Amino acid sequence: MAVYTEINDIELTDYLRQYDIGELHSIKGIAEGVENSNYLITTDNGPYILTLYEKRVEQEDLPFFLGLKEHLADQGFSCPRPIAMKSGETLGTLAGRPSAIISFLDGLSVSEPTVKHCSLVGSTLADMHGLAQDFTIHRKNALTLENWRPLFESCGDRIDEVQPGLNELISNELNFLEKNWPDTLTSGVIHADLFPDNVFFLKNQLSGFIDFYFACNDLLAYDLAICINAWCFDRKNSFQVEKSKALMQGYISKRVLSNAEFDALPILCRGSALRFLLTRLYDWLNVPPGALVVPKRPDEYIDKLRFHQGIDEAQSYGLKETDF
Amino acid sequence: MAVYTEINDIELTDYLRQYDIGELHSIKGIAEGVENSNYLITTDNGPYILTLYEKRVEQEDLPFFLGLKEHLADQGFSCPRPIAMKSGETLGTLAGRPSAIISFLDGLSVSEPTVKHCSLVGSTLADMHGLAQDFTIHRKNALTLENWRPLFESCGDRIDEVQPGLNELISNELNFLEKNWPDTLTSGVIHADLFPDNVFFLKNQLSGFIDFYFACNDLLAYDLAICINAWCFDRKNSFQVEKSKALMQGYISKRVLSNAEFDALPILCRGSALRFLLTRLYDWLNVPPGALVVPKRPDEYIDKLRFHQGIDEAQSYGLKETDF
Repeated sequence: MAVYTEINDIELTDYLRQYDIGELHSIKGIAEGVENSNYLITTDNGPYILTLYEKRVEQEDLPFFLGLKEHLADQGFSCPRPIAMKSGETLGTLAGRPSAIISFLDGLSVSEPTVKHCSLVGSTLADMHGLAQDFTIHRKNALTLENWRPLFESCGDRIDEVQPGLNELISNELNFLEKNWPDTLTSGVIHADLFPDNVFFLKNQLSGFIDFYFACNDLLAYDLAICINAWCFDRKNSFQVEKSKALMQGYISKRVLSNAEFDALPILCRGSALRFLLTRLYDWLNVPPGALVVPKRPDEYIDKLRFHQGIDEAQSYGLKETDF
Repeated sequence: MAVYTEINDIELTDYLRQYDIGELHSIKGIAEGVENSNYLITTDNGPYILTLYEKRVEQEDLPFFLGLKEHLADQGFSCPRPIAMKSGETLGTLAGRPSAIISFLDGLSVSEPTVKHCSLVGSTLADMHGLAQDFTIHRKNALTLENWRPLFESCGDRIDEVQPGLNELISNELNFLEKNWPDTLTSGVIHADLFPDNVFFLKNQLSGFIDFYFACNDLLAYDLAICINAWCFDRKNSFQVEKSKALMQGYISKRVLSNAEFDALPILCRGSALRFLLTRLYDWLNVPPGALVVPKRPDEYIDKLRFHQGIDEAQSYGLKETDF
């Protein structure tokens, strides 16, 4: 949650003159996104999200993030659409920060995903992968295989305070992943952070994906592995095979999963579990004084990593190769 | 700014079944109000504010706050209106906390009030004072004369760290106010916190008052004195007599100010300045670790108190007795 920058009526009214969306009716700072300042504004034309990009977002990445949402929305994909200024640009400047106005997406994130939700997430993820194929801007994943060891090292010597043996668990896993990572699978644009918080539903239908600020180019099947971790475990970290099956069935209903991608799922799930384990571990060990957000404990992803280490075959995720 | 309590889609959807406002479309935690958790929700019927009352609000005061807004809205006054449940009640329970759904009020607070804004605030304040006359619930002001000395004492011995001589300034002022406070003036329901943040404007008209969580029964003219302090000084704490004149002209266009009320304005302004000086001083000296909000420095109200101490006659605020 975050509103870092205060903006007033005068600078906002001035800023809106660059757009063709009518006069301002209201503005509320909203508690959404940890990287940016977000406001819900309403104008003659209805509600919008106004985002000011704070320091944690690399300014050079903004054309990728805004361009991707525009590209997807242009093709009918349901995600927030950056609103173009009269100049045609979507990236502006407000209160000394890069800024954008984005369409308001109706919908609610679900706190307890069902099999049906998982199926819809799978099929919509495959849609997104397909529609992003001809998006021309590229962005390297800043949190993939090559980044995990430096991140691990930056966690320092307090790792075992979180759980005895954790340092060795991560060290061994890194060695394994660095030797075996399947880097020849199909690449494309992935969302890379498709947690239930970032998917909206409305009247039992999926109404859109939000928060593309980790999107990047990487293995498409890795995005599916992130979703298996994010959607297919219960609150006690028990794997729910029927949800994973629904997620994958949804996915393959819209995009063909190759045998190599399917076979790589266990290691991709291990990598995805390690990625979130490492970032949560780092944040847990480095809470700044006066932090607005209490970080999540890394334990959930220790459990998930251990679960995937015990998986020999991709069939354990609910589909057989004969299913597709 | 505050969202203290997280609520999920399931409990909120359940909660909304008690109301007749359609199905939920979206929810955003908003950064408004420091005492409560506030959400902007939209349903089939449009936007609403959902408030969960956190510990700092006395639960026994809620019928006053909700009842007052309902009473005013019923008479056409523009303020957020508590939405009644099917049961007729406006106060519910959500996530273990008292809760209410309130209509969404369009408009923007102004960061640089003009003479015209001040005039509208004055006339609307007088409207409010008149319309609240037959509101039957009473609430004592918890931040009036008798509360200032205990609050001063609770600030401890670090007061002069803020400004040398401040302890003596406050002590002498308290002695003066306790001897001279004009407690025989007309009483009624006052807003008691009508800062520019709490007044919305839309297309150059005043669109409503918000945030009634300091409202109480006290001297009506004291509410006007609060507004003189809140609206009629510039950023350098210089008094702007033309704004004060407009505020008072607006007020007397809708409610007669007695000679006694008019003559009491200098002391009421001193009391109002001391009230905000003391709460800001207390908050400044008692910032909790990890606070979400950096408190405002008390200096602004030291300057304002000193200004009013130099005023002998109410005419200095811009009107003569012959004007009304």
